[in-house]
Amino acid sequence: MLQELFSPSVQHSLDIAGIFVFAISGALLAVRKNFDVFGSAVLAEVTALGGGVFRDLIIGAVPPAAFTDLGYFLTPLIAGALVFFLHPHVERLQTGVNIFDAAGLGLFCVAGTTKAYSYGLGLTASAALGVATAVGGGVVRDVVANEVPSLVRWDRDLYAVPAVVGATMVALCIRYEVLGTATGLLAVATALLLRLLAMRYHWRAPRAWNRRSAVVEAEE
Amino acid sequence: MLQELFSPSVQHSLDIAGIFVFAISGALLAVRKNFDVFGSAVLAEVTALGGGVFRDLIIGAVPPAAFTDLGYFLTPLIAGALVFFLHPHVERLQTGVNIFDAAGLGLFCVAGTTKAYSYGLGLTASAALGVATAVGGGVVRDVVANEVPSLVRWDRDLYAVPAVVGATMVALCIRYEVLGTATGLLAVATALLLRLLAMRYHWRAPRAWNRRSAVVEAEE
Amino acid sequence: MLQELFSPSVQHSLDIAGIFVFAISGALLAVRKNFDVFGSAVLAEVTALGGGVFRDLIIGAVPPAAFTDLGYFLTPLIAGALVFFLHPHVERLQTGVNIFDAAGLGLFCVAGTTKAYSYGLGLTASAALGVATAVGGGVVRDVVANEVPSLVRWDRDLYAVPAVVGATMVALCIRYEVLGTATGLLAVATALLLRLLAMRYHWRAPRAWNRRSAVVEAEE
Repeated sequence: MLQELFSPSVQHSLDIAGIFVFAISGALLAVRKNFDVFGSAVLAEVTALGGGVFRDLIIGAVPPAAFTDLGYFLTPLIAGALVFFLHPHVERLQTGVNIFDAAGLGLFCVAGTTKAYSYGLGLTASAALGVATAVGGGVVRDVVANEVPSLVRWDRDLYAVPAVVGATMVALCIRYEVLGTATGLLAVATALLLRLLAMRYHWRAPRAWNRRSAVVEAEE
Repeated sequence: MLQELFSPSVQHSLDIAGIFVFAISGALLAVRKNFDVFGSAVLAEVTALGGGVFRDLIIGAVPPAAFTDLGYFLTPLIAGALVFFLHPHVERLQTGVNIFDAAGLGLFCVAGTTKAYSYGLGLTASAALGVATAVGGGVVRDVVANEVPSLVRWDRDLYAVPAVVGATMVALCIRYEVLGTATGLLAVATALLLRLLAMRYHWRAPRAWNRRSAVVEAEE
Repeated sequence: MLQELFSPSVQHSLDIAGIFVFAISGALLAVRKNFDVFGSAVLAEVTALGGGVFRDLIIGAVPPAAFTDLGYFLTPLIAGALVFFLHPHVERLQTGVNIFDAAGLGLFCVAGTTKAYSYGLGLTASAALGVATAVGGGVVRDVVANEVPSLVRWDRDLYAVPAVVGATMVALCIRYEVLGTATGLLAVATALLLRLLAMRYHWRAPRAWNRRSAVVEAEE
């Protein structure tokens, strides 16, 4: 029941949409790093599916959904092909990509939390896995591309926080037994909105105290 | 039945051979990166076993074969020791290493696809896992060594494509119920041959359109 | 029985202590790399829990202990917060951190080996997983931070060897049926002492033969 926040076909469409936009971000990084077409496909796949595969391995849902649903596997390849042939247009559409990516973040943190809980994990662990589902693919993407993950860089707009808020909202809804389509959508919308605001106003997280010293600035 | 393309002892010998040559490539990178002897052992292990461990985790075959068969674990250590003491000779034998590595690629993409299918995955997912088995160890090797994975670099000869072709041949053979020792070996040989030809003629994959611009070349 | 080298509450306290000091090392690297507060939390979590999660996935103990015991999850966040607000003091306490980290290394290689064996793995594989439990978190930390893992760098004091010795002692104790609290503690103490001596006297592992050539030195 918990996993059925939305009807199965709606849920599946939302999953595919989230996978698609995450794959776009992977393929775009591949183009920027000058990878070949297979590198683009690889980066699109790991970005789109990495978070969910990690979650499924942790909760023991093997084989992971990414390997049982053909649509999950093929969608990143289509996204990779689109970027490969059209990438100047895709980059021009960066705003659109960002909005979809924010939507993917919201959807995945909510879906990840509910799936983890339905496999018997506690509320805190479920929320943590929801966040991991949402941000994990991006970390794998950056690790494979040999970059410092955007997730941990201080000079990037808040990315984890919206997912943490969304996943926490879902966990609280489960705790107080009010999780349903409306409250689930509210969590998705909150995470999405927070991410959009973070990008719009360049909200950033603080670095450690005393760290903004001359030495550090000079290093940069 | 599916896993028994070859007799168990032949299959095991082929696995060990594939693990050995992959371990050599890991240990050689460790020497080039100036790692110490334990770094060589670590890199030999993860290169040789990484792809298979990933496949086994995904299909739920735990503990993975790498942790149940002592030969799988010890072979990379022997390969690492050989490289450590003899590496100028091993590097002189680079052509031989390349041929064995190509053989490992062919064997692992075929063995990975059949094992995944025998655990109940679909044909496309099985082929994808076969490719992951063949190329995964190399990606882990490069990630641990903090390099951009060879797999995704445009300036490296085709590596994924031979594995994709071999794995696809196996999936088609399963689909049309003609998978046997002969057709299995044909898939191994095709992947091996394609990889050798790619190295011989420096076949490379295209990068994204419009990307070979002056800006990019200057960046390099 | 095997897992109960110590009483459950003592074992749990030791686990939490090991997780805490490993998290400190992750958070300190995050500060040095200038990551933001969430990056610190992420790096603290993966450093502290990475080795154990890997072991649990391999032996099929899902969900891993890190996701079922709230203390395991929260401890790294507390360590991350301490480093974030107090890091100049923590860095001044580097000697203390090093000693605790060495203790964590000893505890984790022993606990990892016994847990793997109790899940049915062979002695060699159990010892290998014990080592992986002890050093895995540090590798994940360095990979996420986009650094060459300390584990494989020749210019770092011995880190894997104490864990290998400790894990091997446990495996031998199991083999000769003398594993108990006393012998378990002896293995912990040996690994701890070896690590402390390695740091004190800068013991390092050799690199490959012929490698200390003029070319290499010039590269450095």
